[in-house]
Amino acid sequence: MNRAIAVALFSCLLCLGQADDSTPASSNVRGAQYPRVHSDLRVTFRLKAPDAKMVKLHPAGDGLGKADVEMMKGADGFWTVTTGPAAPGFHYYWFNVDGADVNDPGSETFFGWAKQSSGIEIPEKGVDYYLPKDVPHGDLRAHWYLSKTTGLWRRAYVYTPPDYDRSARVRYPVLYLQHGAGEDERGWGIQGKMNFIMDNLIAEKKAKPMIVVMDCGYASRPGEQATQGGGGRGASGRGGGQNVVTAFEDVVMKDLIPSIDTSYRTLTDREHRAMAGLSMGSGQALQITMRHLDRFSYIGAFSGTIRNVDPKTTYGGVMADAAAFNKKVHLLFFGLGTAEDALMKTTHETHDTLEKAGIHSVVYESPGTAHEWLTWRRDLNEFAPRLFQ
Amino acid sequence: MNRAIAVALFSCLLCLGQADDSTPASSNVRGAQYPRVHSDLRVTFRLKAPDAKMVKLHPAGDGLGKADVEMMKGADGFWTVTTGPAAPGFHYYWFNVDGADVNDPGSETFFGWAKQSSGIEIPEKGVDYYLPKDVPHGDLRAHWYLSKTTGLWRRAYVYTPPDYDRSARVRYPVLYLQHGAGEDERGWGIQGKMNFIMDNLIAEKKAKPMIVVMDCGYASRPGEQATQGGGGRGASGRGGGQNVVTAFEDVVMKDLIPSIDTSYRTLTDREHRAMAGLSMGSGQALQITMRHLDRFSYIGAFSGTIRNVDPKTTYGGVMADAAAFNKKVHLLFFGLGTAEDALMKTTHETHDTLEKAGIHSVVYESPGTAHEWLTWRRDLNEFAPRLFQ
Repeated sequence: MNRAIAVALFSCLLCLGQADDSTPASSNVRGAQYPRVHSDLRVTFRLKAPDAKMVKLHPAGDGLGKADVEMMKGADGFWTVTTGPAAPGFHYYWFNVDGADVNDPGSETFFGWAKQSSGIEIPEKGVDYYLPKDVPHGDLRAHWYLSKTTGLWRRAYVYTPPDYDRSARVRYPVLYLQHGAGEDERGWGIQGKMNFIMDNLIAEKKAKPMIVVMDCGYASRPGEQATQGGGGRGASGRGGGQNVVTAFEDVVMKDLIPSIDTSYRTLTDREHRAMAGLSMGSGQALQITMRHLDRFSYIGAFSGTIRNVDPKTTYGGVMADAAAFNKKVHLLFFGLGTAEDALMKTTHETHDTLEKAGIHSVVYESPGTAHEWLTWRRDLNEFAPRLFQ
Repeated sequence: MNRAIAVALFSCLLCLGQADDSTPASSNVRGAQYPRVHSDLRVTFRLKAPDAKMVKLHPAGDGLGKADVEMMKGADGFWTVTTGPAAPGFHYYWFNVDGADVNDPGSETFFGWAKQSSGIEIPEKGVDYYLPKDVPHGDLRAHWYLSKTTGLWRRAYVYTPPDYDRSARVRYPVLYLQHGAGEDERGWGIQGKMNFIMDNLIAEKKAKPMIVVMDCGYASRPGEQATQGGGGRGASGRGGGQNVVTAFEDVVMKDLIPSIDTSYRTLTDREHRAMAGLSMGSGQALQITMRHLDRFSYIGAFSGTIRNVDPKTTYGGVMADAAAFNKKVHLLFFGLGTAEDALMKTTHETHDTLEKAGIHSVVYESPGTAHEWLTWRRDLNEFAPRLFQ
């Protein structure tokens, strides 16, 4: 075989994606050959857009690179690009075709950025705590309830642990677990893989069997205007010391908790109720728990902290008596990625201020990760074992 | 106010979508203002694509029109179109931007056409059997199980009726319910609204409380190649009288049913097990039940029939003794939309041939609907009350 033919054959094999070591991403829809992840975690994306003038890959987050990348058009009308090595974990992305933001038909969609967005799972070598293993599995249930606060039917997801259906008389503690801005009640179960994390922790007896409830962090009272991806006034519940009762706080306290305690075999005292959230959800979890310490005794803030904390006054002065607070709150947990630069500083400032005031809190740092789902999977994996012990 | 100013103001209000009687579709993502449904069921779509040469609306099905429609570009870079009155129910659609198929960021996505596709819910006046009402609600659970047939973890959805968690000793009959080609195990719970249909039927005591199991109709044995949206050889199970054991049949009989009967409080005898499916799923339901009448006693084929049925030989001659078959099979149900022209003919041919052979079957015709989810919602609403009575 002469050299020209060999090169042509090699190119042909490359164009079929067969000559390299790449495989379709696990987040692809059934049978889709692109996107493909290479063994060094470079990713090849492909999109059919025969009449387009310009197609770009838009990484929505840092995991696939920080900037849009122009794709190259082939004679077959397909545009392709191969990125540098991607960060392990889950990353949102989309394409831009002549100014239009476009999802990848080869990938599943995931609710993030206030819309259904493409996402890709990049494998993490040697790590399996969030993968399905041959252990007993809990169910992840869509639970519908009527909210008096909003006047609307709402869907919460409820994880029941593997033994729930077999132990008809056992009652379980409950963790309320919230998503971040632009996401919704589906995030933890899909992007977060929380069911597999809990299944694996429970199988290894690292975490107590518990019910986990994930609601939508957006809520508007009747007549309030909802914005795309947003809720009514004060929906985010960000920041410390607020005295505004958000619609979401009322949903949780007056609608969701009663519905869960009526529908599932829960332990209903404060000793057996925790709340955590990520990013926007961390603000909501902090605000709701701090304002209702008669109902919660474990608190988790993932990629979020209490800014400018003043132990004497923040959250209505609930921490002013450190000894009393420490007795009530069995865990105040801050989790974040070490690549979340600004947040690393503020979280440690908060932790130090609390320490000086004699208030116990824990900081977990996820090595090398940013404001992304891999941080939050690790947070849950670290947080859940500390609950209800 | 002079006429020119009045017209200008009116146009401006129109462009804001405020002067007409349209409202955002219920299938929009939170807060998205487009697509909008008018009171006469015309729909206005909008997409931002400032640099595109051509943008078209592609109705994927007949409900929004039969052909692609060119959209008009405004000075603001948004392309818009208003369709004629749409058919009530659920319709897939997408846009085409310079040759690229593009989802609508304003709509939820739904797994159909072997990818995540945009979809829109068009309201059906005076009809509420598939809407959430103030009745007890069952849970819709994601249930993970390891399939020996495929070697992979699979997700099935399991509807447990409203009283399931409160009646720790009651066991329930089970309906296995399959989606169509290009869809997956999510279809019935999302596009089909099966949980609300069952909640409402059970609340009105029209249907017996039952468990409903929805699996993915695609399965490949290890080493078999899966195609996008497709499964291995013989995945569809279409047509009558086949003697091929598909991977999906093995998944249902050897993996799924044992997992469900182990995990849930089911009644496990044939008198309390039904199977139905739509389109591709109707072929699967017919083939699997007919080959395993020792395990099933109720059969539903939605938008699918037994083509060229020969009562003496089809499905290995299981209907050859009509009296014995009628005694075994309490219901053989064919449901379809009257707008499914070719299928109307073949379904009635099959029904007539069976009647002449003394074999009982029921045909339900959904008035005016095509090969679409509104047909299948109605099918379920007609089929479920006839089960386990």
